[in-house]
Amino acid sequence: MGKKIEALRELLGVVADLTAAAALLGWDQQTYMPSGAAGGRAMQLATLSTLAHEHFVSDEMGAAIEAAKAEAKDLAPDSDEARLVRKTEHDYLKEIKVPSSWVSEYSRATAMAHQDWEQARAEADFKRFQPHLEKIVELRRHYADFFAPYDHLYDPLLDDFEPGMKTAEVKAVFDALRPRQVELVQAIFEQGRPVDDSFLHLNYDLDKQWNFGVEVITAFGYDFKRGRQDKAVHPFTTSFGLDDVRITTRLYEDYFSTALTGTMHEAGHALYEQGIKSTLGRTPLEAGASLGMHESQSRMWENLIGRSKPFWKAYFPKLQGVFPQQLGNVAMEDFYRAMNKVERTYIRVDADEATYNLHIMLRFELEIALMDGSLAVKDLPEAWNTKFEDFLGIIPPDDAKGVLQDVHWSGGMIGYFPTYSLGNLMAAQLWEKIGQDIPNLEEQIERGQFGALLGWLRENIHQHGAKFEPIELLTRVTGKGLDADPYMRYLTGKYSEIYEL
Amino acid sequence: MGKKIEALRELLGVVADLTAAAALLGWDQQTYMPSGAAGGRAMQLATLSTLAHEHFVSDEMGAAIEAAKAEAKDLAPDSDEARLVRKTEHDYLKEIKVPSSWVSEYSRATAMAHQDWEQARAEADFKRFQPHLEKIVELRRHYADFFAPYDHLYDPLLDDFEPGMKTAEVKAVFDALRPRQVELVQAIFEQGRPVDDSFLHLNYDLDKQWNFGVEVITAFGYDFKRGRQDKAVHPFTTSFGLDDVRITTRLYEDYFSTALTGTMHEAGHALYEQGIKSTLGRTPLEAGASLGMHESQSRMWENLIGRSKPFWKAYFPKLQGVFPQQLGNVAMEDFYRAMNKVERTYIRVDADEATYNLHIMLRFELEIALMDGSLAVKDLPEAWNTKFEDFLGIIPPDDAKGVLQDVHWSGGMIGYFPTYSLGNLMAAQLWEKIGQDIPNLEEQIERGQFGALLGWLRENIHQHGAKFEPIELLTRVTGKGLDADPYMRYLTGKYSEIYEL
Repeated sequence: MGKKIEALRELLGVVADLTAAAALLGWDQQTYMPSGAAGGRAMQLATLSTLAHEHFVSDEMGAAIEAAKAEAKDLAPDSDEARLVRKTEHDYLKEIKVPSSWVSEYSRATAMAHQDWEQARAEADFKRFQPHLEKIVELRRHYADFFAPYDHLYDPLLDDFEPGMKTAEVKAVFDALRPRQVELVQAIFEQGRPVDDSFLHLNYDLDKQWNFGVEVITAFGYDFKRGRQDKAVHPFTTSFGLDDVRITTRLYEDYFSTALTGTMHEAGHALYEQGIKSTLGRTPLEAGASLGMHESQSRMWENLIGRSKPFWKAYFPKLQGVFPQQLGNVAMEDFYRAMNKVERTYIRVDADEATYNLHIMLRFELEIALMDGSLAVKDLPEAWNTKFEDFLGIIPPDDAKGVLQDVHWSGGMIGYFPTYSLGNLMAAQLWEKIGQDIPNLEEQIERGQFGALLGWLRENIHQHGAKFEPIELLTRVTGKGLDADPYMRYLTGKYSEIYEL
Repeated sequence: MGKKIEALRELLGVVADLTAAAALLGWDQQTYMPSGAAGGRAMQLATLSTLAHEHFVSDEMGAAIEAAKAEAKDLAPDSDEARLVRKTEHDYLKEIKVPSSWVSEYSRATAMAHQDWEQARAEADFKRFQPHLEKIVELRRHYADFFAPYDHLYDPLLDDFEPGMKTAEVKAVFDALRPRQVELVQAIFEQGRPVDDSFLHLNYDLDKQWNFGVEVITAFGYDFKRGRQDKAVHPFTTSFGLDDVRITTRLYEDYFSTALTGTMHEAGHALYEQGIKSTLGRTPLEAGASLGMHESQSRMWENLIGRSKPFWKAYFPKLQGVFPQQLGNVAMEDFYRAMNKVERTYIRVDADEATYNLHIMLRFELEIALMDGSLAVKDLPEAWNTKFEDFLGIIPPDDAKGVLQDVHWSGGMIGYFPTYSLGNLMAAQLWEKIGQDIPNLEEQIERGQFGALLGWLRENIHQHGAKFEPIELLTRVTGKGLDADPYMRYLTGKYSEIYEL
């Protein structure tokens, strides 16, 4: 590596260490921190993120990037070093465009919004949250303007989570997807053979659930020497460097599905980070290509694998051994159907595979309308409910189960929601390619073997970290840009069989 | 508060947050961190401590101190603000005297020394450690010279751990103490009635031990809303601000004493930090007055309370309820004697109250001899063994059980050991004063009531944090400087009864 790039890496290492420390403080906050420490922890987190930001946008960093760019000219454009310089410059140019006065105002606004959102949701009182959201939408419009000119006001927001992706692309794909997915869901509810999942709601010992989950993700390839699992109210994955990628889960005694699918989901995220090439450590490349690509990995392990028939052919006998009383008399086919039961639900995080994207597309359309001014914040609840009925056929009984359910907007995260659906689509698109490259994949999964699959993911996706933008990576691997067809093929095939459509 | 002092506090807050984050990384390293993360964690810790140092010795900090000093002139000299400025300046002037070239060399030397010390101890091979210790002694002499002129070469080292204390003072007290303590120990071994502690070595369920310890320290007043207990191989207390003071313990199934006394010891440290006035938070005053004063608190709760007869009058019946099989037929008096059994041991951390200080005084004398050049490092093992026989009547079978047993010297910590004994002395000195101020203290403890005691400690010691130097604080509270008599009275009284001397 050249000396200038090495010097840039040194500076980036300090930022990475500060970010890792902040991530550990955040992990601790949600796992082991005593309640009385909340105030002090908030200050510590603010200090660390301020310092990380200051170090990243410093003049010294700017000069180091310029020097490294000159050196990178002689390198292959797709080499790790050239891409590191390019990605660093991209992030740097974005960050220095945002004045610190805006950052302060935004931090204050979202901190206050979050408090009142909690209260508003508890009381199903949108009016309490409305002025905060109005302020946030206004601030987010200002934010987008820092990046003018843009094709769409929503582009700069989306770019924070899906580098390089455009609103028009997402819109085109979602528009193609929505009617087909609405149609499928209607068919399930109107013509589907009912699914019984009552046996998932019996009493399941928590320790046994925990151990079963650990057994499954160990077989997936999650490395407990470079990670660990803890309990948290809202499960998440976090990393403090590539050799410390931790997951969390929550367990319910009276519902089997939550803990296991949550564990598989977070392990999917973690396998991505654990698979990033170690030489990308302590740089901006030690991350996934985007939130959508990250979600493609979590959903692949949770849904395409963890809710598949081949997987349960391998694991249902083991699970019956662990819970003979609850599952001894249940047939594997019935268990598989139960794990994939489709239900109309108001709440996104409770949604199944068949309905999930509808929850997202609704939010995406509303966010765009809020940003471009065609929808006023005060009219948001009504717009939510109207669209909800269109997409899912039911109307939320109140705003707590409707427009107030998600934390994202209170934190200013407009542009984040579409990444969940993009993850679903990317997962299915990758999955078809994997099926071509590993013809006996299904039989391997039926034998509980995931080595070839993980090897493929590491080779094609994981190792690159954030070296490529998500659509670029997807295209390199599958030969195509974002495409909704594989996902619809997957959904239709799976649910036609389960619901005998 | 004046504006200049407020501005100084802002800068100090950043240093405090960085230090707190580093402490959390350290806590995690010893509790939950997966083994594969060690390399990355070391870099993160180095980055955070470097940044904390840079922020503390910055020109901006120097100017802020000067400005605050001018403002503090009008304040009462013992006010929190005046003391904050004074302590900050003291620490600042110390830190800026040490050139960063020395810090780098010292970091490298101790990192390498630590590795080889582990190996040397495992193989009982002092020769492997010798060159490292020679280097460390040399570096420590340089360090002392940064603070010339001094009364004694050892003074600047001691000052890092016991601000304001002089080698001559410690030496005078230790010289007075040693012959009396050696005499007591000899009397115990030669004339004492034997103590049977075999019932402490039965099988004690780990969860029940844990819960009993939690019950005891909750009664002491340890606040689990502002702290928590976890397991660690080497127990310690750490804090990330005054509202997050955590302890750790270790448990053995086949020896009852370790976990409980360890928990009480660490809780003693933690009660100190939890009791510091909240307005001292995020400043250099949010710490104990010194390591010795800190140790006075841990040893008071562990020994003067936790190994006392009044305590066991309250708690032995409860403990018998928890372990009826192991202790149902044991008399309280016999249990109390077993918890205070005196034994000749080679290992400091296993030593009982009667012999502990002898282990420390040996190290103190050897450290001084190494520093002033009257003892060469190569002759250290022989000097160790000779003194050990003098003080304790036995000779270590090898250097692993002798001169190589402690981690401290490999980390460069010369000047640290005496604080353990200073803690013992201060604890006894404070205890006599508490006995005068709370005449029925013993009866309160017999009823399991610790509120008045904790209140006294908070009022007289804890709340002040690092506002006063240790001897200054001791003198304010007891009317006397450091004094070995209370400790000898305590030891002689206790062991004369137990061993029927």
